[in-house]
Amino acid sequence: MLIMMKSHATSEEIDAVCRKIELMGYRAHPIPGSTRTAIGITGNQGPIEAAAIEALPGVGECVPVSKPYKLVGRELKEETTVIDLGDGVRIGGPELAIIAGPCAVESREQTRTIAAAVAAAGARLFRGGAYKPRTSPYSFQGLAKEGLEILAEVRKDFGLKIVTEAIDVESIELVEHYGDVIQIGARNMQNFSLLKRAGKSQKPVLLKRGISATLDELLMAAEYILAEGNYNVILCERGIRTFADHTRNTLDLSVIPAVQRQSHLPIIVDPSHGTGRREKVLPLSRAAIAVGADGLMIEVHHQPEEALSDGNQSIHPLDFEQLMDEIRQIASVLGRTVAPGSARKT
Amino acid sequence: MLIMMKSHATSEEIDAVCRKIELMGYRAHPIPGSTRTAIGITGNQGPIEAAAIEALPGVGECVPVSKPYKLVGRELKEETTVIDLGDGVRIGGPELAIIAGPCAVESREQTRTIAAAVAAAGARLFRGGAYKPRTSPYSFQGLAKEGLEILAEVRKDFGLKIVTEAIDVESIELVEHYGDVIQIGARNMQNFSLLKRAGKSQKPVLLKRGISATLDELLMAAEYILAEGNYNVILCERGIRTFADHTRNTLDLSVIPAVQRQSHLPIIVDPSHGTGRREKVLPLSRAAIAVGADGLMIEVHHQPEEALSDGNQSIHPLDFEQLMDEIRQIASVLGRTVAPGSARKT
Amino acid sequence: MLIMMKSHATSEEIDAVCRKIELMGYRAHPIPGSTRTAIGITGNQGPIEAAAIEALPGVGECVPVSKPYKLVGRELKEETTVIDLGDGVRIGGPELAIIAGPCAVESREQTRTIAAAVAAAGARLFRGGAYKPRTSPYSFQGLAKEGLEILAEVRKDFGLKIVTEAIDVESIELVEHYGDVIQIGARNMQNFSLLKRAGKSQKPVLLKRGISATLDELLMAAEYILAEGNYNVILCERGIRTFADHTRNTLDLSVIPAVQRQSHLPIIVDPSHGTGRREKVLPLSRAAIAVGADGLMIEVHHQPEEALSDGNQSIHPLDFEQLMDEIRQIASVLGRTVAPGSARKT
Amino acid sequence: MLIMMKSHATSEEIDAVCRKIELMGYRAHPIPGSTRTAIGITGNQGPIEAAAIEALPGVGECVPVSKPYKLVGRELKEETTVIDLGDGVRIGGPELAIIAGPCAVESREQTRTIAAAVAAAGARLFRGGAYKPRTSPYSFQGLAKEGLEILAEVRKDFGLKIVTEAIDVESIELVEHYGDVIQIGARNMQNFSLLKRAGKSQKPVLLKRGISATLDELLMAAEYILAEGNYNVILCERGIRTFADHTRNTLDLSVIPAVQRQSHLPIIVDPSHGTGRREKVLPLSRAAIAVGADGLMIEVHHQPEEALSDGNQSIHPLDFEQLMDEIRQIASVLGRTVAPGSARKT
Repeated sequence: MLIMMKSHATSEEIDAVCRKIELMGYRAHPIPGSTRTAIGITGNQGPIEAAAIEALPGVGECVPVSKPYKLVGRELKEETTVIDLGDGVRIGGPELAIIAGPCAVESREQTRTIAAAVAAAGARLFRGGAYKPRTSPYSFQGLAKEGLEILAEVRKDFGLKIVTEAIDVESIELVEHYGDVIQIGARNMQNFSLLKRAGKSQKPVLLKRGISATLDELLMAAEYILAEGNYNVILCERGIRTFADHTRNTLDLSVIPAVQRQSHLPIIVDPSHGTGRREKVLPLSRAAIAVGADGLMIEVHHQPEEALSDGNQSIHPLDFEQLMDEIRQIASVLGRTVAPGSARKT
Repeated sequence: MLIMMKSHATSEEIDAVCRKIELMGYRAHPIPGSTRTAIGITGNQGPIEAAAIEALPGVGECVPVSKPYKLVGRELKEETTVIDLGDGVRIGGPELAIIAGPCAVESREQTRTIAAAVAAAGARLFRGGAYKPRTSPYSFQGLAKEGLEILAEVRKDFGLKIVTEAIDVESIELVEHYGDVIQIGARNMQNFSLLKRAGKSQKPVLLKRGISATLDELLMAAEYILAEGNYNVILCERGIRTFADHTRNTLDLSVIPAVQRQSHLPIIVDPSHGTGRREKVLPLSRAAIAVGADGLMIEVHHQPEEALSDGNQSIHPLDFEQLMDEIRQIASVLGRTVAPGSARKT
Repeated sequence: MLIMMKSHATSEEIDAVCRKIELMGYRAHPIPGSTRTAIGITGNQGPIEAAAIEALPGVGECVPVSKPYKLVGRELKEETTVIDLGDGVRIGGPELAIIAGPCAVESREQTRTIAAAVAAAGARLFRGGAYKPRTSPYSFQGLAKEGLEILAEVRKDFGLKIVTEAIDVESIELVEHYGDVIQIGARNMQNFSLLKRAGKSQKPVLLKRGISATLDELLMAAEYILAEGNYNVILCERGIRTFADHTRNTLDLSVIPAVQRQSHLPIIVDPSHGTGRREKVLPLSRAAIAVGADGLMIEVHHQPEEALSDGNQSIHPLDFEQLMDEIRQIASVLGRTVAPGSARKT
Repeated sequence: MLIMMKSHATSEEIDAVCRKIELMGYRAHPIPGSTRTAIGITGNQGPIEAAAIEALPGVGECVPVSKPYKLVGRELKEETTVIDLGDGVRIGGPELAIIAGPCAVESREQTRTIAAAVAAAGARLFRGGAYKPRTSPYSFQGLAKEGLEILAEVRKDFGLKIVTEAIDVESIELVEHYGDVIQIGARNMQNFSLLKRAGKSQKPVLLKRGISATLDELLMAAEYILAEGNYNVILCERGIRTFADHTRNTLDLSVIPAVQRQSHLPIIVDPSHGTGRREKVLPLSRAAIAVGADGLMIEVHHQPEEALSDGNQSIHPLDFEQLMDEIRQIASVLGRTVAPGSARKT
């Protein structure tokens, strides 16, 4: 059930409703909207008696939830959630969130080189894995804490916000200490223990769609995080597994408008994993922006052929610069913007 | 094997090479390019002796074919094929090919109403099925010849080129008589008898990707048509079958750059079948143009809720007008154009 | 709507009901069952007035159809259809239908060698393609009429019933002349013109499931054939297209009990195409019989490495003999039998 | 690289080779086979110098590994691994491993009722989840430690070995304390932190194939466990995600012979999750045994319609008894056995 407060309800009234819900043994999730606050309720086993709540001052109406999810739905909140990372960097707002960087942090040198390049081209968020979930136990698994320290340096020196993956309860503590956004990878989209732990974090979470996740499963995975009280979740489409063999995965751009219809959470696209082929990253980045995504996550490497992981899908900084140029123009058609690159000649 | 003629080879020299190939018992396919003509050879069982051909005047080099297809590949022809339908309507050139109209021709009235609307919005090609391949034998199967006559009227009265589906050897004769482009539907992509027959037609062929066709299977299906001597083939991505259930099919936009890398044939996108949901048609149309497609095929109906087929995915003429506006802007970012609508107020 | 006749209804009464239906402008499909005859009605656009029919002598009840198909459903006929090919060869009865032979008829010699071997091992039906639908226009396309003549010889000399594929309206006329069962391949499962033509044939039809066909699509394809008056259809599972890459296709054995629940048509399994790998044919054949299939279709070649098509999935006659041994034992667990091999030593 | 010891190599010689490998900075995995011991090496970054090892007494040959996995491959160990759980219960040997029980432990009463029934029918292993990974955060998540205590009672009172799922590092410690086999669910197949932790356990691990995992990914997931020193891994096919909609998942029985060709690990089948439909469990169980699986995992509930999870796919104890009868007969065709049921009348 959702409680829709009246538009002029005071914060005291909202608090009182929340306290009442908690007294009933449930958990209250007040979500402010542009015109009014909605309150989601979780923790109930069956239907909730609306009468006791409807009688409280400031309550507009009690709405039954028609979907399996309660907190991620547009029913609860009409406006798209905008996640503010500070320093003017927001995800879900008019300015597109461009996250760029190497697949993995390999060394200080490599990381700084790429950071300088992507910052110059206009990226405001930096990606780079310190913990790498790899199909083989014998593949490079990331620099762990050492990698996170390099990322923290990059934030300080280049002013980039850090998005990096946590793979278990242990790594998430370090990631929330060093990073700005906790990434949960596709393979962990239904690692419910990790989702619950991320839901207890103060840091926003970037949740990647599992390789064979339906829309409902993606939204329910996000619901796990919100249900624990962390409402700052960004979804990410990164390709699904199909029979098609001309790309590593099949990028499902139709999920962008589908998510936007069902949920208030922002959603970005990762065309690097989504295609697995360097030469497809630019055209699919244009398409992702054209379809209405809130941003991109792009793998960039200055020596893709020597990358320790995912070299085939990493683009060179020069190509990234061109990518930024192209999406800047597409974005303007949709009334959105891309941050200017400091080093850009135009 | 491909024969690359020298750039200054005369047409007599080209003819002589073709005659030599035919004398050897094979079939010659001379394909003019912007700088030189290439000649594909089919009908051989094994490798061809190059020596006898290389010795002929005007021959540049004999190149072995590295792909399973010979005639559809970029190896044979570097430039994208532009198909000229007359009256300035071309597919594969700078102006995007926008094909719009109802799923099925239901009546003269319905067809003319929609034709007027899409022409006014800038479409230069009209779609509408007279033969409908339907999953159920009890569903509306199309008006057949009567439908084709209505389409011929539309061409005359609205100046639209007609794209309509042939479903067997019988219908293809009528379609090539009444229409401008013969459509081969997704279910018939590997109906090899129909492909061979289409290869003998003088009319261009629009070949839709099968619902579970790989890139190679799509190109090989086109190769069947070219091998019979019809080099005017347009490919069309219309969604593939996956586990995802938020759309009827999963539109695979990555196949556009993949086709463009492998083949010289133009390729368009059908977001109506590709998503099966009206509200997804606009965003995916923008994405299709942004990814670099050569055009769109859009189902438009003035009364979608009363359509005899595919009502769920048909958009209203007003939405089509907006779609044209939006893709016009995206197209200009990519250096391409969309024909202006006659009735447009701007 | 289905008309369930009373169990003691006379053939005159059944005829009278059929005449009444035809007079109403529809088509009547009388289907005899073990206890009573049911009559399916097709050709109606909307609901049918039951009253006029219910009043006729011998009519038990009029039952509305709850499925999109009318004639293939168990609602119409409770018992599994048994198709009698003469000489004691039946499909759908207690004796399993084992269809074996080469992918393609390559020569008289090759065909007769394999026919002798599979007959000796107990097969009573012979497969072999005279028309081969091939992905590439440059691959071996079959011996056509010459191949059919070889097959006719095999029938005469080895007493095997002939199952062979028709690929278009032209070939189906020859196939129904020379063969005993008309095979419609997976790529043609939704070639509705071909289905309609097969529905007008006097010969039984073996309909293979399309590579990405749902259960409903398969049943609706069969419905096309029955709607034209040919009630002798055998379905065939031959693997679906998935992401899995350890086999060429993924054999979906769960479709066997699913079909048996919905439809009265017999269903067999083709583990050769279903797996595409020789070494998987035996174990999956055992599984197919154990799951309850009505038979198998197996590719056998005495020189698999030299086969003109599908060599990778063809098994050697010695392996086929072992296969027959193994399924004979599995069959007996399910209360079914396999014909004894004439040349078997046991 | 694999070290194949001579057949008469002494345990001192084997120890010496392992010590040498550890001295080189790698990890040695001695795997005894029926005729000789093989030693796998992990922890190396590149190729290993074979010369120093080949010179040691008792070494037969050094074999380069041709697959991405080293320890799960048949190259390392020719015989199928047999996992001994004590009391005569083995997985991978001639007697099939039948694991049966409810989806979730719901109460002592429910659990004991089902345990009594499945033990009577011949099951020697009991399944029942105390930790339930659920798509929705609002669904029943299991009784946790209380559930494990109920399972421990069942082992004591019914003599059944306990197979139960661990979902994170926390639960695995309890599961290895209370259970006999640690189950890793499909959603966690690539939860590499969990796999590594399971690799450090003394208890065998049942690893379920992910819903969209390829054969190689499944084997690499198992490799994570073996690389940590736990060689007792049982694989489990439980259905993959495809477009097909007549079952919840598509059971891929061809993966059984595929695994058996590549790996020495035993593999069982879960037709309950594999189909998601009660009425498909029996036929697919027969098929799984016929294809050659080493056992089954079956959901049984005495009140399926009231089950807190997966009621649709749980079968009644009476059906389970019939299932055991049927597979007992199929098993005997393959030279395998099923334990007799104590309470069986036959």
